[in-house]
Amino acid sequence: MNGYQVENVLVRDTFAEAFSVTGTRLIVTAATPRWAEIAASEVTGYGTSVIACDAEAGIEVRLPAEQTPDGRPGVAIMLYAFNQESLGKAVIKRVGQCLLTCPTTAVYNGVEQVADDKQLPLGKQLRFFGDGYQASKGIGARRFWRIPVMDGEFLCEDICGTFRGIAGGNLLIGGESQAAALQAAEAAIACMQECPGIIMPFPGGIVRSGSKVGSRYAGLRASTNDAHCPTLSARSESHLAAATRAMYEIVIDGSDFNSIQQGMRMGLRAACQQSGVTEVSAGNYGGKLGKHHFHLRDLLDKL
Amino acid sequence: MNGYQVENVLVRDTFAEAFSVTGTRLIVTAATPRWAEIAASEVTGYGTSVIACDAEAGIEVRLPAEQTPDGRPGVAIMLYAFNQESLGKAVIKRVGQCLLTCPTTAVYNGVEQVADDKQLPLGKQLRFFGDGYQASKGIGARRFWRIPVMDGEFLCEDICGTFRGIAGGNLLIGGESQAAALQAAEAAIACMQECPGIIMPFPGGIVRSGSKVGSRYAGLRASTNDAHCPTLSARSESHLAAATRAMYEIVIDGSDFNSIQQGMRMGLRAACQQSGVTEVSAGNYGGKLGKHHFHLRDLLDKL
Amino acid sequence: MNGYQVENVLVRDTFAEAFSVTGTRLIVTAATPRWAEIAASEVTGYGTSVIACDAEAGIEVRLPAEQTPDGRPGVAIMLYAFNQESLGKAVIKRVGQCLLTCPTTAVYNGVEQVADDKQLPLGKQLRFFGDGYQASKGIGARRFWRIPVMDGEFLCEDICGTFRGIAGGNLLIGGESQAAALQAAEAAIACMQECPGIIMPFPGGIVRSGSKVGSRYAGLRASTNDAHCPTLSARSESHLAAATRAMYEIVIDGSDFNSIQQGMRMGLRAACQQSGVTEVSAGNYGGKLGKHHFHLRDLLDKL
Amino acid sequence: MNGYQVENVLVRDTFAEAFSVTGTRLIVTAATPRWAEIAASEVTGYGTSVIACDAEAGIEVRLPAEQTPDGRPGVAIMLYAFNQESLGKAVIKRVGQCLLTCPTTAVYNGVEQVADDKQLPLGKQLRFFGDGYQASKGIGARRFWRIPVMDGEFLCEDICGTFRGIAGGNLLIGGESQAAALQAAEAAIACMQECPGIIMPFPGGIVRSGSKVGSRYAGLRASTNDAHCPTLSARSESHLAAATRAMYEIVIDGSDFNSIQQGMRMGLRAACQQSGVTEVSAGNYGGKLGKHHFHLRDLLDKL
Repeated sequence: MNGYQVENVLVRDTFAEAFSVTGTRLIVTAATPRWAEIAASEVTGYGTSVIACDAEAGIEVRLPAEQTPDGRPGVAIMLYAFNQESLGKAVIKRVGQCLLTCPTTAVYNGVEQVADDKQLPLGKQLRFFGDGYQASKGIGARRFWRIPVMDGEFLCEDICGTFRGIAGGNLLIGGESQAAALQAAEAAIACMQECPGIIMPFPGGIVRSGSKVGSRYAGLRASTNDAHCPTLSARSESHLAAATRAMYEIVIDGSDFNSIQQGMRMGLRAACQQSGVTEVSAGNYGGKLGKHHFHLRDLLDKL
Repeated sequence: MNGYQVENVLVRDTFAEAFSVTGTRLIVTAATPRWAEIAASEVTGYGTSVIACDAEAGIEVRLPAEQTPDGRPGVAIMLYAFNQESLGKAVIKRVGQCLLTCPTTAVYNGVEQVADDKQLPLGKQLRFFGDGYQASKGIGARRFWRIPVMDGEFLCEDICGTFRGIAGGNLLIGGESQAAALQAAEAAIACMQECPGIIMPFPGGIVRSGSKVGSRYAGLRASTNDAHCPTLSARSESHLAAATRAMYEIVIDGSDFNSIQQGMRMGLRAACQQSGVTEVSAGNYGGKLGKHHFHLRDLLDKL
Repeated sequence: MNGYQVENVLVRDTFAEAFSVTGTRLIVTAATPRWAEIAASEVTGYGTSVIACDAEAGIEVRLPAEQTPDGRPGVAIMLYAFNQESLGKAVIKRVGQCLLTCPTTAVYNGVEQVADDKQLPLGKQLRFFGDGYQASKGIGARRFWRIPVMDGEFLCEDICGTFRGIAGGNLLIGGESQAAALQAAEAAIACMQECPGIIMPFPGGIVRSGSKVGSRYAGLRASTNDAHCPTLSARSESHLAAATRAMYEIVIDGSDFNSIQQGMRMGLRAACQQSGVTEVSAGNYGGKLGKHHFHLRDLLDKL
Repeated sequence: MNGYQVENVLVRDTFAEAFSVTGTRLIVTAATPRWAEIAASEVTGYGTSVIACDAEAGIEVRLPAEQTPDGRPGVAIMLYAFNQESLGKAVIKRVGQCLLTCPTTAVYNGVEQVADDKQLPLGKQLRFFGDGYQASKGIGARRFWRIPVMDGEFLCEDICGTFRGIAGGNLLIGGESQAAALQAAEAAIACMQECPGIIMPFPGGIVRSGSKVGSRYAGLRASTNDAHCPTLSARSESHLAAATRAMYEIVIDGSDFNSIQQGMRMGLRAACQQSGVTEVSAGNYGGKLGKHHFHLRDLLDKL
């Protein structure tokens, strides 16, 4: 794979390939910023890849009180799944298990315009937990449920909207050591967390188990990307630069092409400036599986 | 429900009723304490109740480097499910999605004695991700897999053990306001997090959506515990003390009766000493559903 | 003191009285966001009030990598003192003890335009620690020092600028209980931390020891504000609303009137929306000591 | 300097040299663990070295509610200074500025046996802030002050004890890169934070600006330890191993020889097991300045 040098970093001439998915956005508020954070962390946990999780989930942005519907501290989260049906199942279970249960929280739809056929039930279904004691209230065109719980009431919007988003945007960051590559990925994540419209669903936003399609074992559809494993450079054709001794991937899901591209741009720029970074790249499947392509060259052209 | 006063707090004369479940314990290590924490948080996320989650999961204890198998900072986690089969499915998916993927982590069995018929596959199954490049190594009677990934190798023990544990131990803490009840529950959680052998699987360890068996809606097996909802005191027979305006529950899962009892004791003592606490209680189903009973009276007798 | 109701909250018809001081702003970067945070926390610690500390200090804003001079994660901090001389002493000691020493950090001037007579030495003085091995480099009109340390080099700008700022802006938030007042103050702080140009120098941004001028003890120039102490309502003339059982103050220092006013506005709005808040007010000395007056009425007029 | 290999790590045959100082220990409690942590962090901030700070200060251990005098969550902190007089000044100023002011906190003496001539005033002096409204209460031989503040009362023990402790215990950890050395030092710190009786007063517990006695500049008594600066290896006689490209120091203060030795032992063991560590050492002045010597050989002999 070709590339070009930007100071000490080899920038591969390649692109990230991403897929269309269905997404939603919720706003979780609580009595304190800490409880909003705890709630958001639990409800988006175990939500790294739709290959095995029911959804890809993460925190989009922290919201100070003046930016939330009820004037309390909040967090906006995003969840993505293959289609609206599977997303709906994941959302109702996650909200029921992790937010209905969580001290002081309330939940609001966070999608701006909600078409009639792009709705997921939220309070509409969870209200039955109230056993007849729940009450609805309408504010303008929006409807909310007040469900009695032991610390007062769980306020929950009737429905949330969905949208057609993109999953699988990605960056690869190689470094001269594991620690250097990790520091650079952390610096990239810190920038990308400030970008609206995206989440990085893996632990701490970072993945180390890059995969290739297929496997020598029957029935396994993906396996380790041996060309990117530094310990295999003597046994397998390596695609790593000679100086690269560890690589991390950042996977990005988002509401639209531009949000993901801007997140990748911020992450790439941050990564390239960290010491010990050897190369940056991106993952794709030859461009045939996913219809969204993010070329690194476009990101750096606009530096 | 009767009770007696301990200073300003009404201690209900009741007991927590808990159930036999299957549990496991894993030790997750990483290059830094922060990454061990991120990994443990993700892998135990969305793991509050087996009613709707695949497992109840949480952090048992942080382990400084000298207490882990590889001398790196670590965290011990516990997961509980109805039986060994469902636990096995949850563990392999969670470890594959949240630890195999997570920068710098390794995973070890954390159960002391492992009978042959009480094993769950760990590396034994995840190794296939290595696509033939994986390698096994034995240290004494234990076997490990080294699976190549982009940041080096994911070291994963071949299997982990299971044990017969207990789920659903609980405390109820009532306060003169939502904020007072929450502060007291937080103080209790801080003590209980120091107790070995237990986890508190709900968000931040605390639940506000106490439930009763049954519902006026057909098909719903549980609904809000209206007798414990402060906003319903005028509409439904209340079991709350007159001064109680909010209540929180702490649910405890653990490896054995004594660990849970000790955790409840520490939590109860801490809660009773916080300002604004009005009553402490526990939840049960009349003693007929769960065979493990934890009487509050036993806990305070040993103060 | 008069006031008017905004929903359930009594808004006192009063103003905060603040003072002219000298301030500076530094940008601290590090290899990871966590280390930038550790550095910023240490260097601004024990910096609550110039009555007894050498400076009032705090974190202004977290900076993702693309917003810092060296493309690494960073934090902007502010320090305030009575005059340029005392500020210079505090800055050089704090930076020497807490940043020169801290793993991976660099320090940059964070003041935009620096007049010749408004400079404090930074690298200009700390460079001597390099024992002759230090090197200077110029980038445009700015000068930096590279001081050899055990983890590489400490990069430190030659000087930083000062400006005439304001200290002692404040809000008072009363609640129906200690816990309710504290939650509201925390919600206000979470909003104010997003506002540029200001710091809240007390622990967690919040003060509980409001003071009045003078004391019955000779030589003490300030003592507890008994009119605001809920436990003294029977012994001393109380200025608290009948429902107020605890009050917190938020002290704000900032670069200019508008920044502080905007921070107070955000904090006031957030506080008024939290449950259990009884009153909001501000502290002054009759308007004779400080020349900057922030009227609450102006803040709410623009809601 | 000689040494011997323990697996991949060169252990220098040397010792840490430390000094007698005066110390105290305080227990800070608060309504929640988070506020105890905020209070402890502020009151121990800017407390790295008595060369320029008024005290060396840090968190000794977090205390769950059942281990504190008032049954609330707490933190034990330690402060060290050259002598009892300077320590007394630092303690009263720090407690007055950072704990009296901090929401919900109380402060207790944390030294077990307090001789009459080894007391520092705490509430004894701070009580005057109460302007005559303060009240004392005795519990057994101990005396406390209840000082009215806006969130209720600040409870503060009358005095705290001092003891003859030791400052300047230290470890040096070298790595093949800055990131590797830092990870190892962080792993060591995580272990040492579990050890009772010690603090590590520098930012995050770690120092990068090792110093030597003297300087080529008149009047400077200390300057960079050029023999330990990796960027100077071509210009100055290096004491670093050939593979060492960055080094960090951990400075330890403690109540007695054994506590520091045990902390060093835990830290050394943790550091030696991290990947990328090249050497471990310790700093001394030839043994002539400080009377406490901690030989690395003794620490590893007992592995």
